[in-house]
Amino acid sequence: MSSTAGLVIPCRAAVAWEAGKPLVIEQVEVAPPQTMEVRINVKYSSLCRTDIYFWESKIVSAKTDELEHRFVWVGCFVEGLGGLQGQTPLFPRIFGHEASGVVESVGKGVTELKPGDHVLPVFTGECKECRHCKSEESNMCDLLRINTDRGVMLNDGKSRFSIKGQPINHFLGTSTFSEYTVLHVGCLAKINPSAPLDKVCVLSCGISTGLGATLNVAKPKRGSVVAVFGLGAVGLAACEGARIAGASRIIGVDRNPHRFEYAKKFGVTDFVNPRDHQKPMQEVLVEMTDGGVDRAIECTGNIDAMISAFECVHDLDGSFIIINQGFFQGWGVAVLVGVPHKDAIFMTKPINILNERTLKGTFFGNYKPRTDIPKVVEMYMRKELELDKFLTHRIKFSEINKAFDLMLKGEGLRCIISMDD
Amino acid sequence: MSSTAGLVIPCRAAVAWEAGKPLVIEQVEVAPPQTMEVRINVKYSSLCRTDIYFWESKIVSAKTDELEHRFVWVGCFVEGLGGLQGQTPLFPRIFGHEASGVVESVGKGVTELKPGDHVLPVFTGECKECRHCKSEESNMCDLLRINTDRGVMLNDGKSRFSIKGQPINHFLGTSTFSEYTVLHVGCLAKINPSAPLDKVCVLSCGISTGLGATLNVAKPKRGSVVAVFGLGAVGLAACEGARIAGASRIIGVDRNPHRFEYAKKFGVTDFVNPRDHQKPMQEVLVEMTDGGVDRAIECTGNIDAMISAFECVHDLDGSFIIINQGFFQGWGVAVLVGVPHKDAIFMTKPINILNERTLKGTFFGNYKPRTDIPKVVEMYMRKELELDKFLTHRIKFSEINKAFDLMLKGEGLRCIISMDD
Repeated sequence: MSSTAGLVIPCRAAVAWEAGKPLVIEQVEVAPPQTMEVRINVKYSSLCRTDIYFWESKIVSAKTDELEHRFVWVGCFVEGLGGLQGQTPLFPRIFGHEASGVVESVGKGVTELKPGDHVLPVFTGECKECRHCKSEESNMCDLLRINTDRGVMLNDGKSRFSIKGQPINHFLGTSTFSEYTVLHVGCLAKINPSAPLDKVCVLSCGISTGLGATLNVAKPKRGSVVAVFGLGAVGLAACEGARIAGASRIIGVDRNPHRFEYAKKFGVTDFVNPRDHQKPMQEVLVEMTDGGVDRAIECTGNIDAMISAFECVHDLDGSFIIINQGFFQGWGVAVLVGVPHKDAIFMTKPINILNERTLKGTFFGNYKPRTDIPKVVEMYMRKELELDKFLTHRIKFSEINKAFDLMLKGEGLRCIISMDD
Repeated sequence: MSSTAGLVIPCRAAVAWEAGKPLVIEQVEVAPPQTMEVRINVKYSSLCRTDIYFWESKIVSAKTDELEHRFVWVGCFVEGLGGLQGQTPLFPRIFGHEASGVVESVGKGVTELKPGDHVLPVFTGECKECRHCKSEESNMCDLLRINTDRGVMLNDGKSRFSIKGQPINHFLGTSTFSEYTVLHVGCLAKINPSAPLDKVCVLSCGISTGLGATLNVAKPKRGSVVAVFGLGAVGLAACEGARIAGASRIIGVDRNPHRFEYAKKFGVTDFVNPRDHQKPMQEVLVEMTDGGVDRAIECTGNIDAMISAFECVHDLDGSFIIINQGFFQGWGVAVLVGVPHKDAIFMTKPINILNERTLKGTFFGNYKPRTDIPKVVEMYMRKELELDKFLTHRIKFSEINKAFDLMLKGEGLRCIISMDD
């Protein structure tokens, strides 16, 4: 055990005292880990759209459209959350969930991790005991699945963070904007100690989400034509998955034309801007591909984009009509990643489903955090997966508010925050 | 070659002269097969809901509801077609598409079949040359996929049937209500000659459709909980697939309580009648199964049933709520088989998709006719698949109108018509 094991650790953390106000670097006290908990020294953290969303804690009403516009085509597992209503403002709070670190000490019952292990914290978990964890078909752990409203640890319903006795709320069970943080052991993926922590930290959320949506869910075959809606970090990770899978053509759909040049690095071959067309996107894509794409991955959360993504998959060529319904011509798979406004309704003619199309939703790229994320790190180590192109900015922990400014301006993909600086 | 090869064959056929009027057994002349065509001696034919639908050729308007009610929970690949509009009345016509027979002679270019081979005609085809046939992901042959409006052969745009020089229309490229018929070679599955033709004939349409929906598309694992909407022949074939796959529980949903007792033969363990409940079926099923079923197969074509089938898959237990949306609890797969009214719209909250549910459509159980149907026959020969329980009636060809009466009354599952009698 380290010399700090069992002791309270005083350290720096970026505390959000109020919704939307700049974070303040404070001295916090981090309590030791309890049963099935682990305390880690966070080495690198990156900022993800989900942090911004809950930090802003806006209640969206009449301005839904404006907000949707801001949130669409950016972000992370809650990409496209813009129009959602009703997040619970919970302050003071320590945000941060995309990170890497080293185990400092472990609580009772923890056998899989020991001090010194390199880990990625994950906002959802894998207890390995529940029916979801035991099923090959789910990564939605009953015990540890994402809970955005909880600000405390499961073990005792209390926070491990405090400032002069005042508890500070956790966020997503991770709170990585602190030099030390405490997590449930089920929310930590133990990774190859040779992996560079300043790079693989981005695998703990958004990049895995997009990559897995393609590789685990859409599963394009070599030579497939793949459309990706939204060229933010998650969408580009989906493109990266398509590139790795050997897609012959990757069509990027985004409202921001400035994204195309950069997207070429991720294998995007064609670019479509919905603003340049009068027709629905599905019609444009079906025409471009002589009948439809093989796979479509929707990473915006915009409901129209979701419907377009489903209806643009192979094939709607209309060459054969039964009973006026354009019947029976499909094989494509559409995968939905982006989270829409809570009042949105997905609508399609049933015939579009009966045409042998498949529609799938995914969460965290269908990866089980502890079992699968270490393998994604190995993909990077083998140079199959390229991460450097996602890392567009680097800053010191003391400048963390700059990372928020960059994301609010829509600049870059991932900003790496060095926690030691 | 047989002694009749190259000659016109006079034989008996049941001709539909007008929509909805009893068929008339006539002496017809059947021309020899042309390039890539095969003439077969039909041994057994069974009646399927699709024959009835196009024989009735009703234009549905204000009475949609009444008709839907009749067509729901019965039939075949167009199960639930009741509300559809716009089928083209094409008379005189020889119906019939679920059958078995023996090759009499083959046309130019046919190398895979020879006189004496045992075959099942199929209403859709497999040319083995087009992009769909070459793809592992599709069974929707570009050349031979189902066409309900065509009454002639592809080769020359003409019929092979005539009565005193008057051409009689084909139906679905099969027209098996005739002692002899001509088909494109791509619409014939060559089967084990030891298979009893009076039983395996039902594999040429409805039974394969339901069986494949479960085995090829829903793919339940051993011990799964499977819900099947509609306990007609197709739905019961889906149940049979679930039984073969080792489902631990098969929940049958049907409005007709008389179907339950018989459904037990197909492994159905639980029965739910929507008429007995005020709540939507998905809520009832989620409650019954502590969170949702693993797989749901929709065989009615009723749009509400389609939505219920999708939303009842695992799991909606509401134990965890993020942003008031009941977020992130899924793994189930819903498969849609039934064909709905053309104006129906499939609607669901996107969150139901993002919960890692999968929605798939299927056509002919995703079987490629020539490649896969012979293997389904072998499943029967190995006694894995039980067919006898589907065969509820037997009649002589001369009594064919009785089969129509039985189906219109909703009696039984499959009526086998012996063409030699």
